[in-house]
Amino acid sequence: MRRPSPFRLLGRSSRSQARRGEVLTLHGAFQTPVFMPVGTQATVKGITPENLKDLGAEIILANTYHLFVRPGHELVEKMGGLHRFMHWDRPILTDSGGFQIYSLRDLATITEQGAGFKSHLDGSSLFLSPEDAVKVQEALGSDIMMCLDTCIPYPATREETVDATALTHRWAQRSREAQKETGQLLFGIVQGGMYEDLRAQAVEDLVAIGFDGYALGGLSVGEPSDVMMEVTAKTAMLLPEDFPRYLMGVGTPEDLVEGVYRGIDMFDCVMPTRNARNGMLFTSTGRVVIKNARYHDDPLPVDEKCDCYTCRNYSRAYLRHLYMAREILSSQLNTIHNLHYYVGLMSDIREAIEEDRFEELRENFYRKRKAT
Amino acid sequence: MRRPSPFRLLGRSSRSQARRGEVLTLHGAFQTPVFMPVGTQATVKGITPENLKDLGAEIILANTYHLFVRPGHELVEKMGGLHRFMHWDRPILTDSGGFQIYSLRDLATITEQGAGFKSHLDGSSLFLSPEDAVKVQEALGSDIMMCLDTCIPYPATREETVDATALTHRWAQRSREAQKETGQLLFGIVQGGMYEDLRAQAVEDLVAIGFDGYALGGLSVGEPSDVMMEVTAKTAMLLPEDFPRYLMGVGTPEDLVEGVYRGIDMFDCVMPTRNARNGMLFTSTGRVVIKNARYHDDPLPVDEKCDCYTCRNYSRAYLRHLYMAREILSSQLNTIHNLHYYVGLMSDIREAIEEDRFEELRENFYRKRKAT
Repeated sequence: MRRPSPFRLLGRSSRSQARRGEVLTLHGAFQTPVFMPVGTQATVKGITPENLKDLGAEIILANTYHLFVRPGHELVEKMGGLHRFMHWDRPILTDSGGFQIYSLRDLATITEQGAGFKSHLDGSSLFLSPEDAVKVQEALGSDIMMCLDTCIPYPATREETVDATALTHRWAQRSREAQKETGQLLFGIVQGGMYEDLRAQAVEDLVAIGFDGYALGGLSVGEPSDVMMEVTAKTAMLLPEDFPRYLMGVGTPEDLVEGVYRGIDMFDCVMPTRNARNGMLFTSTGRVVIKNARYHDDPLPVDEKCDCYTCRNYSRAYLRHLYMAREILSSQLNTIHNLHYYVGLMSDIREAIEEDRFEELRENFYRKRKAT
Repeated sequence: MRRPSPFRLLGRSSRSQARRGEVLTLHGAFQTPVFMPVGTQATVKGITPENLKDLGAEIILANTYHLFVRPGHELVEKMGGLHRFMHWDRPILTDSGGFQIYSLRDLATITEQGAGFKSHLDGSSLFLSPEDAVKVQEALGSDIMMCLDTCIPYPATREETVDATALTHRWAQRSREAQKETGQLLFGIVQGGMYEDLRAQAVEDLVAIGFDGYALGGLSVGEPSDVMMEVTAKTAMLLPEDFPRYLMGVGTPEDLVEGVYRGIDMFDCVMPTRNARNGMLFTSTGRVVIKNARYHDDPLPVDEKCDCYTCRNYSRAYLRHLYMAREILSSQLNTIHNLHYYVGLMSDIREAIEEDRFEELRENFYRKRKAT
């Protein structure tokens, strides 16, 4: 069953694969390329939904695995769905749990039927089939659901990769069949490890099933950055033009620029939020480790060119003090800044693509970093 | 040297000692009776200055001892003072460090000259004289400074109490003499333990020196609640009518109502913020321990009658989830609610005094609690 694409292509770069688009969901459209802040447990750590909107976030990601384990999808459904539960009325993408099961693979057993695993909270035995993953995400009421997949470690033998990719394909088929007519979108996940031909086969198989978007999975799992970008470029070229492309779990600001350059529309990563809590701040000229003694009496904002709430109102000296004193406000202010940086970078990228000067943005992006 | 009082009496109850007033400071006036949220380390834990203003906070408290130890008053002064450092443009009261030195008394040595103590951070030896305490608070640039005092444990012998109260008196004299003409207010602290005559002597001695306001210290240190309230009532009656009266480190919502009833104008306590982080929420009908299983699937707000940001947007079920998941947003939302409750209670109290129905408010306050 072929459905209309939720993606509308609004423009493209004349000198790269970069593209400008929008994705229509049950909770409105979001503009691409886009970065999705991660709200693992139905909250983006350290920041309110109002803060997120203020800094321009259009869509967030929540983790099916974590919400399945706690508080449980039945509770979230009973409370009116994830949007109402967490007070966020813009689009939400939920991952399928595949990556968490991969991360916790010492506690998991993958069979044809699905993934058995032990809860990271209390060790209780749990099971998630591809059909369950769809059902859980339907209960959560996310706008974009992901198929349960089997993520492949790096490095992996060709044989392991063939098997895991084939299983991901069969699970994708079952996911599509399990899906109810809720208006939620369902994305397939391209595996295939670092093998070009297996990635190509995976794309072909998923497109034959037909999804509302396609994600590149199994990247940023330890492979060198250039390998990741080569696989990304080659896989993106094979994906249908008229559907959104999502590079899962990626990445650094550099990765976002390079991913867009290679035709990616959507990204998510815990880096801006996690690093914020660890006192590492992103700026247009590079990274700031706020605990460094050099910031002890520095009256300047983190980034003089930044107009986020944090940079408008607080000095590096104060942010350093908050970090050293382990104050909650440290996480709050650093998170606002880092997400503002990520979301702002994507906004700049979109504008640049519209004006067909994305390659200049990319060059300037690196030049500013080298200058410092 | 007698100065004009910063206090303006705006009204009083006809049936109790409750009074309505305002205190004028370098950063504007605040209305009394008032509750001051505690911002120990130049931040009220878990909440931004904008959140604090939104919920109606007019003045906050910061701790001289903590800021002296980290990041140091010289740094704060260099960064433009505490207001600018922490991005708060309303009045700030700084305590003197006396209570912290009392709390850490196993690490402290009190002499005529001042208090020697070991830093709770790194064990380094530090010293704070009454003159130092004024100097530090002048560097911080707070609107209201407190004299360094020697807090008396409960129980204490008459002899111990006489000695400590006399030392507090001599330190108060030295504090007043050390004060520069900055426009900052300086409050004296009435000690005297639980001895009525020693409290009376302490009031007489401090008034003879002449301060901009008078605080009741050494209460809420372990004595029974009725003893605290009796000492409060008797001491407040002795204090000059035309100066603000501050009951330090107190207390529960019940303590605020009873303190106002006995003529107190100002309060501070870590209870609303600390309890928020521990999942205990204040409501008009009593306390809610949000982790309780009964709230697991409760779609109601914490307090149906509350119009704070938290109650307008989040369910008990979500707040319980955040607490169980140890999410930062748990502290943020609970803190907003609890401070809104405390600040709102004081606003209700002020309105009731203006309309001479404070005693009805007091009766209703207890009736609502009994009903549940």
